[in-house]
Amino acid sequence: MPVAYPISLQRLIGYFSKLPGIGKRSAERMALAALKWSDNDLAGFSDALGTIHQAIHPCRICGNLAEDELCPICQDDSRMKNIICIVEQPSQIIVFENAGCFRGRYHVLGGKLSPLSGVGPDKLRLRELQERVAAGGISELIIATSPDVEGEATAHYLANEFSSQGLSITRIAAGVPVGSDLSYADAATLAIAINARREMQ
Amino acid sequence: MPVAYPISLQRLIGYFSKLPGIGKRSAERMALAALKWSDNDLAGFSDALGTIHQAIHPCRICGNLAEDELCPICQDDSRMKNIICIVEQPSQIIVFENAGCFRGRYHVLGGKLSPLSGVGPDKLRLRELQERVAAGGISELIIATSPDVEGEATAHYLANEFSSQGLSITRIAAGVPVGSDLSYADAATLAIAINARREMQ
Repeated sequence: MPVAYPISLQRLIGYFSKLPGIGKRSAERMALAALKWSDNDLAGFSDALGTIHQAIHPCRICGNLAEDELCPICQDDSRMKNIICIVEQPSQIIVFENAGCFRGRYHVLGGKLSPLSGVGPDKLRLRELQERVAAGGISELIIATSPDVEGEATAHYLANEFSSQGLSITRIAAGVPVGSDLSYADAATLAIAINARREMQ
Repeated sequence: MPVAYPISLQRLIGYFSKLPGIGKRSAERMALAALKWSDNDLAGFSDALGTIHQAIHPCRICGNLAEDELCPICQDDSRMKNIICIVEQPSQIIVFENAGCFRGRYHVLGGKLSPLSGVGPDKLRLRELQERVAAGGISELIIATSPDVEGEATAHYLANEFSSQGLSITRIAAGVPVGSDLSYADAATLAIAINARREMQ
């Protein structure tokens, strides 16, 4: 009979190992570390997990993570209402916000088209976007899905879907990342960077 | 005003980032993943964390992790009672058990001597070990602290402490790991491996 961790610890290890990027050894290390936390910290962690579904829900307008009916961005009247940046996931809003390069609003699709995984247009928050556009006051949709196959397919689908509404529909630029070493650029990125080259003067 | 994750999500990210080896980005990824779990899984994870302190305590005899008064090893009458393998942490018992190379009992010190971190002999489970030895029936102590500076110091301290009790006191062998490539062996390990060389016939 092999001796293993006690059942209650194995259960905790099991949950940790369900997290992304966490293998069995890391999960064991985490559970053993958590075992040494103070009662207070453990109770706090447990509570933070157990209440997160009640605390967080999608913003009624854009689908961003929100604790109120609207997310802080949709509540912020200083942000431009006429430009909507369309992203796949709420985490990508944080990336844009940390970069501080965009002062408009967002729309979270909740994924990207992926017929092989059974994600069709009906699985994305498209109706909500159509309603926002129909309500008026929107002049530009910036499509910021990822520059991979499914993200590009989603971008083309969106561009086609909203083409007849008199909006400017743009796509974020793909190319070599700033600060990167060209020696390590992949062929697809280099091809795009060459084709989309710009006059310097 | 930088827009960030909602407070309740930041709280959860904070707890994840307290785990060993988890940086801010990984913690965000974990919290966002947990947000997508089913209510059932989240409640289970929360409960597993919140109850682990009540469920697990040190075995009264050896200090291993236990759900009952005694750990499964101390409860197992088929294991030799006369040999005690002394380890730093309960997780090292699992390593020995998985290797299947030892059928005696264990004793968990709960750490190793580290004067710089304020860990003196009084912080280790030494009194409990002295009581086990005093109770009789022990013929050998195998000191299996780690082969690092503090582990060696602890081993010498233990050897000295129990030297007058008529016991065999042994230390696990240090040397090059089985299956390793000698090209990558460090100097200290090679020196020990040379000095502790054995006749092959």
